[in-house]
Amino acid sequence: MAALERISEEKMQQYLAKVPQWQRSGNAITRIYQFPNFLMAMGFANAVAICAEAAQHHPDIAIFSWNKVKISIVTHGQGGLTENDFILASKIDAIQP
Amino acid sequence: MAALERISEEKMQQYLAKVPQWQRSGNAITRIYQFPNFLMAMGFANAVAICAEAAQHHPDIAIFSWNKVKISIVTHGQGGLTENDFILASKIDAIQP
Repeated sequence: MAALERISEEKMQQYLAKVPQWQRSGNAITRIYQFPNFLMAMGFANAVAICAEAAQHHPDIAIFSWNKVKISIVTHGQGGLTENDFILASKIDAIQP
Repeated sequence: MAALERISEEKMQQYLAKVPQWQRSGNAITRIYQFPNFLMAMGFANAVAICAEAAQHHPDIAIFSWNKVKISIVTHGQGGLTENDFILASKIDAIQP
């Protein structure tokens, strides 16, 4: 299966099981991270940005409530989740498990 | 008036007039900026972060849709807007008019 094809519901469950800290939210998967302070939250946001730029797949990154970061991944072009989205989630999990 | 006191509705209108590109949104003021690409959006987010850390006043920063940044400023402790919030908005406007 091409990494950019929208995946089936069955595949979705398999992939979600591999990134258990991510939640499905509509056409996206999201995870919220918490840090000791604002600067660490920004540092993580930048690490995600470097990873995203390398993959040419850019999630939404929200730094909020002073020390939290919410990542939302979706492949807009496909109108739903693809294998690529879960690959990016795994890479982000590798930055901050 | 202390910069950390919640401001009156009358003052609010005066302050909003000074930062005309910001919108009131509930207890916050927000502005959305657009950039040529993701890296420029992240660069701006970081410039805002440096400014925010220096002021010890941390807005929510959302990098979304690949090239947009939404800044939301609110003084949580006061349950509403204060002079400090508008000072931060002016500083951010100075980064990217």
